[in-house]
Amino acid sequence: MKATVTVMLKPGVLDPQGEAVKSALGAMGFDGVEGVRQGKVIELDLAPGTTEAQVTDMCEKLLANTVIESYRVEIA
Amino acid sequence: MKATVTVMLKPGVLDPQGEAVKSALGAMGFDGVEGVRQGKVIELDLAPGTTEAQVTDMCEKLLANTVIESYRVEIA
Repeated sequence: MKATVTVMLKPGVLDPQGEAVKSALGAMGFDGVEGVRQGKVIELDLAPGTTEAQVTDMCEKLLANTVIESYRVEIA
Repeated sequence: MKATVTVMLKPGVLDPQGEAVKSALGAMGFDGVEGVRQGKVIELDLAPGTTEAQVTDMCEKLLANTVIESYRVEIA
């Protein structure tokens, strides 16, 4: 069983990594890049029987800083 | 127009971040986590008319280190 957790900074939280990528793309001649947000993706290989609630618990306790980050969980 | 680029280390490339997350989850009592890989996700706001080929070009030139990382592009 696999779960994919995507963690992004919440809207309104300054994202210096994203800003750096945006200006680098502009400097390289890629026009039309209006905004960039960078987050992280965590792929978990889980033992059978692990529930989505447990994955949510992992996100709340370790994977995301819920003060400034939002997350979403996809179970595959 | 939005594009989401997901960049992961290729299989076989050591992933110390993923290993750290795995052992932290184990130490917190989450059993059943058999493997963790951590990557990054980049959300791009693009001007209308930007093509998927241009986004692929951004990945090849800046967003991914194709020696050790693979990427996938989703256009929304």
